[in-house]
Amino acid sequence: MSKNVTVVGAGLVGSLLSIYLSKKGYNVSVYERRDDMRKGKAIQGRSINLALSDRGWKGLEGVGIADEIKKIAIPMYGRYIHNKDGTTAFQPYGTEEQAIYSVSRATINMKLMDLAEQQNNVKIHFNKRCIDINKQYNTINFENVNNHNIETTNFDLLFGADGAFSASRLNMQTGTDRFEYNQHYINCAYKELIIPPGDNETFKIEKNALHIWPRGSFMMIALPNPDGNFTCTLFLPFDGKYSFDNLKTKESVTSFFNEEFKDAVPLMPTLVEDFFNNPTSSLVTVKCYPWTFDSKIALIGDAAHAIVPFYGQGMNCGFEDCVVLNELMNLHGNDWEKVLSQYQILRKPDADAIADLAIANFVEMRDKTADKLFLLQKKIEAHFSKKHPDKWIPLYSMVTYSPNIRYSKALEEGQKQQAIMDEIMAMPDIENKWNSEEIEQEILSYLY
Amino acid sequence: MSKNVTVVGAGLVGSLLSIYLSKKGYNVSVYERRDDMRKGKAIQGRSINLALSDRGWKGLEGVGIADEIKKIAIPMYGRYIHNKDGTTAFQPYGTEEQAIYSVSRATINMKLMDLAEQQNNVKIHFNKRCIDINKQYNTINFENVNNHNIETTNFDLLFGADGAFSASRLNMQTGTDRFEYNQHYINCAYKELIIPPGDNETFKIEKNALHIWPRGSFMMIALPNPDGNFTCTLFLPFDGKYSFDNLKTKESVTSFFNEEFKDAVPLMPTLVEDFFNNPTSSLVTVKCYPWTFDSKIALIGDAAHAIVPFYGQGMNCGFEDCVVLNELMNLHGNDWEKVLSQYQILRKPDADAIADLAIANFVEMRDKTADKLFLLQKKIEAHFSKKHPDKWIPLYSMVTYSPNIRYSKALEEGQKQQAIMDEIMAMPDIENKWNSEEIEQEILSYLY
Repeated sequence: MSKNVTVVGAGLVGSLLSIYLSKKGYNVSVYERRDDMRKGKAIQGRSINLALSDRGWKGLEGVGIADEIKKIAIPMYGRYIHNKDGTTAFQPYGTEEQAIYSVSRATINMKLMDLAEQQNNVKIHFNKRCIDINKQYNTINFENVNNHNIETTNFDLLFGADGAFSASRLNMQTGTDRFEYNQHYINCAYKELIIPPGDNETFKIEKNALHIWPRGSFMMIALPNPDGNFTCTLFLPFDGKYSFDNLKTKESVTSFFNEEFKDAVPLMPTLVEDFFNNPTSSLVTVKCYPWTFDSKIALIGDAAHAIVPFYGQGMNCGFEDCVVLNELMNLHGNDWEKVLSQYQILRKPDADAIADLAIANFVEMRDKTADKLFLLQKKIEAHFSKKHPDKWIPLYSMVTYSPNIRYSKALEEGQKQQAIMDEIMAMPDIENKWNSEEIEQEILSYLY
Repeated sequence: MSKNVTVVGAGLVGSLLSIYLSKKGYNVSVYERRDDMRKGKAIQGRSINLALSDRGWKGLEGVGIADEIKKIAIPMYGRYIHNKDGTTAFQPYGTEEQAIYSVSRATINMKLMDLAEQQNNVKIHFNKRCIDINKQYNTINFENVNNHNIETTNFDLLFGADGAFSASRLNMQTGTDRFEYNQHYINCAYKELIIPPGDNETFKIEKNALHIWPRGSFMMIALPNPDGNFTCTLFLPFDGKYSFDNLKTKESVTSFFNEEFKDAVPLMPTLVEDFFNNPTSSLVTVKCYPWTFDSKIALIGDAAHAIVPFYGQGMNCGFEDCVVLNELMNLHGNDWEKVLSQYQILRKPDADAIADLAIANFVEMRDKTADKLFLLQKKIEAHFSKKHPDKWIPLYSMVTYSPNIRYSKALEEGQKQQAIMDEIMAMPDIENKWNSEEIEQEILSYLY
């Protein structure tokens, strides 16, 4: 096996992967469809801020760049709930020191490209759109999007890290017998909005929190950026009573926001312009298999497993792909037949699990974060977990802060925990005795 | 709306659809990727014989061509079971006059093309491969597969009838936001084999039956052709103990067939050659939605809903698509916005139902047709149905002989029937009292 690797896509996962590969001594050529975002304005009004958590940090630490990224990240220690009646509540994400970190997609992507190019064996080629991949002859055709010329490149090993709408994956879909493929859109769209900074880059709402305006069938969230602004995202069905379909005029938008997000409206001076300027985007889940082909082509990140953003795990899961791949390279060296076959066997159940957890968390965020019984359940779990950390790690903590617990294991444990909590929550007078010895013993009785 | 319609694909459904459209006064241009199969040898050793049943006949009758097709079809009145120990059994498909009809795919396809071209407003263009469809400009690009020239054609209304691996559908998948798409392969492949005729085109096994060699995890079937031969199909897992993976040598094939299909081997003189000459093909289920786009593009037949062949309904379902479309044209005339939106809303649940029924019938055919309790259950159902035809139509009969019952309704009723039969079959001494007054009353008690 030669030491030349082709990576399709210089997004978050493609860039990080190229650093991992370079550290192992491979020469890496990265081909990116878009222009170099570092040369111009990257903001397109359609990104959701990302929440880096422990799986993502582990991926960055693996190549020694976590500290660099921490400089552009803002810790969020919990959910800051904005109720419709104007009241607010802070719900910690875990223990006091546990946080997830807000980063803008463009900022972290540009930083990762910089770090990749600092390796002396990584080269990123921009404006190169993947047209097709020839599995038999190990060639890939790119269109130079500036002059529309087709350029053919040979590869020994190729990674498709080209995102949810991956051209690499499409090529595998059309060119591989027995390729399992599923793409599913939820009936919810999203739109980016903004809360600008106050004077001197001050934060107009709590800086170190993920803000949620939960409204049952829809919600708005806001994540902080270093310059004092918040990237807001409205998640709303395409159609139905509360929907983008019903927000076609300035009047309807204004009255909808005044009704539903009254405390936010004064903080959003460009609300109506942003609403009509920024696109309404859909949310896809993609599941496919296999992820690797002939021991020389592999899909990674969103190209292999696009998920909805409600668990904040898309990027983290993609970075974890890199960690797993790196561990397998440590184990099997250049034996890519072994590395790739074990990579897909190991990662597929975990990607499926986080895809399902992400869908489920949409309901939790938009609906249950405003539900008293749900909050009581979380409080009981946190209380019990603090007393018996060896016996109970809340599902959110397993997913977010426990990179040593696989997503598939977290899903399985979470289902068991939910079954136990269903019993606990059905106990009479639970509201008053939630932190009692009796409840503690009752939970313990289920754990043996 | 103009009167010019483009149909992609001159397969079974594309050809029949073109006749329906021509009868409504449309000018129809059909584009087919392959060469005209009527000019040469069509047999490629990878087709499963088709079983025309009442939904299919209704589709053919709708344009007055059922009699023409009946000439090339052979009625099969039941399953003829070949057990491993050499015993055989005949299981009727319904009442004495109810049959499904064996036709070879190539023969019926060629006949349908002939009939389509006999309409004076249908033109079939061969060797034209669909490259891409431009929804905005109503154009479609075809590659002339002989000289590789790209030809652009305008369309007012376009039907993608280009099969399970539809290029039309792929274009909609890549070019349509929120396109739901799922392709799934079962772990079973198929291979065409043959039982040639005896002297003077005699049939070496029962002519008017669908032959099954059920063996649990795999099976062989054989369907008659007019010249006395039988098209056999071996359905076998790709891998595992009994699998194509384990049949890589002449010796292993011979010993496998001698062990499993002992009575068939003497009838198959070219078995080993056929086994290694004919391809091993996969079996896909495709579900997608929407089926129609901008009121001017529609998917139909396998392009919209590819299913596995175990209920013998793939072609029948595609022909029923044409019937439904025709009824909607009768209702709404040229109002294609109405016709197409109702077409997809009406047909989607039925296509999903028959897809699921077809998967379930694989288990029935390969496994349960050799199971005594299953056969007893079928006997009880037939007995009861004969006495109370208004109260009970067996699931197979609903699907196969009852075009007025939607597939989705048949699936629903079938599930209710199965729940009742689970109770009946659990009754003590059911083997001896299966046709008693007591059992009849018991079944009746569940039906009120």
